[in-house]
Amino acid sequence: MREFLIIGSKARTEKFSLNDLPGAGRIDILCRCVSSAFFLSHDIRRDVNVYLLLLGPPDPPKVLKIVGKEVKYMPPDERGIAGLIRKALEIKADKNWKKSTPGIYVAKKGLEELLDEVASDVYYLREDGEDIRKLKDNNALFVLGDHEGVPEELEEIVLRKAKKIIGIPTKSLMAEHCITIVHYELDRKQLNS
Amino acid sequence: MREFLIIGSKARTEKFSLNDLPGAGRIDILCRCVSSAFFLSHDIRRDVNVYLLLLGPPDPPKVLKIVGKEVKYMPPDERGIAGLIRKALEIKADKNWKKSTPGIYVAKKGLEELLDEVASDVYYLREDGEDIRKLKDNNALFVLGDHEGVPEELEEIVLRKAKKIIGIPTKSLMAEHCITIVHYELDRKQLNS
Repeated sequence: MREFLIIGSKARTEKFSLNDLPGAGRIDILCRCVSSAFFLSHDIRRDVNVYLLLLGPPDPPKVLKIVGKEVKYMPPDERGIAGLIRKALEIKADKNWKKSTPGIYVAKKGLEELLDEVASDVYYLREDGEDIRKLKDNNALFVLGDHEGVPEELEEIVLRKAKKIIGIPTKSLMAEHCITIVHYELDRKQLNS
Repeated sequence: MREFLIIGSKARTEKFSLNDLPGAGRIDILCRCVSSAFFLSHDIRRDVNVYLLLLGPPDPPKVLKIVGKEVKYMPPDERGIAGLIRKALEIKADKNWKKSTPGIYVAKKGLEELLDEVASDVYYLREDGEDIRKLKDNNALFVLGDHEGVPEELEEIVLRKAKKIIGIPTKSLMAEHCITIVHYELDRKQLNS
């Protein structure tokens, strides 16, 4: 099981316009991360879960959970994914996961509570981390920030929970591209094992 | 110089709705390819060019050329990039490159003519190709198909022009993810050289 948690530091926690995803606290980034995490050519990775931690106004924090083995009717384009996120945000969220559409759940919880409930080893993906190519763990949750990175007070929590800091040593990349590369390196390990 | 040519087998060649990019012959795929080709975290790869060959109705073929070292005001989100593509398609295109916005050009030409004018070595990116990890050429144009792959009659041209068929041996991936991985592998080569 591979899992990704993307922290949307300004991502809106209520209805937003599908015509301006960047203006909704960079929901566009989260959509591209979802697309990178799940989509293969004409297929979906069923062994993946994605968590989106939304920290923007008006009602932070909220978490969306997208479960690869359950998800249906999810297209790979930003607007299509944003539509599913928006639908999930219409639900009155509380501490318990509530189902929005197949495979998509929403809850009102923060980072620490979320990390406490995941079973995978936690890895923090940050530029200065250990080369991803050395990682062998295929039962992992990767924590990524958006364009603003992980806010300092949350980074403390991530560092406390993380087994290791992992990095991509080439360039400073956008979150969605990091996800593609994590998949690629771990897929190669599986191919060679 | 790294260059990417993405063949949009059904991509519209005239005005389309920004609210339905998949319905415009999968312009959404081309937009994600552009985003993957150019964007770093808070930066743009200036040593990259992208060609989009649009083969959908009503006026195929058309080619858009996006020149990394000239491009300005390009956002990384699908809708933002689609807006620039749509703007370029408003121009009455002929055989010569006409500038739409900074770094974005449009012309009325087909695949063979386009490949004849590029200076880079041509590589065809196809699932069964030689492992990308073995590639050392950093002066390369990579040809990719969209969700339908490269149409048969065009594939003949690509095979004739291509130095080699290159592949990503892990999974069957979407075009935009292939671009991310091409960059990543070539970046690693540069890092180690």
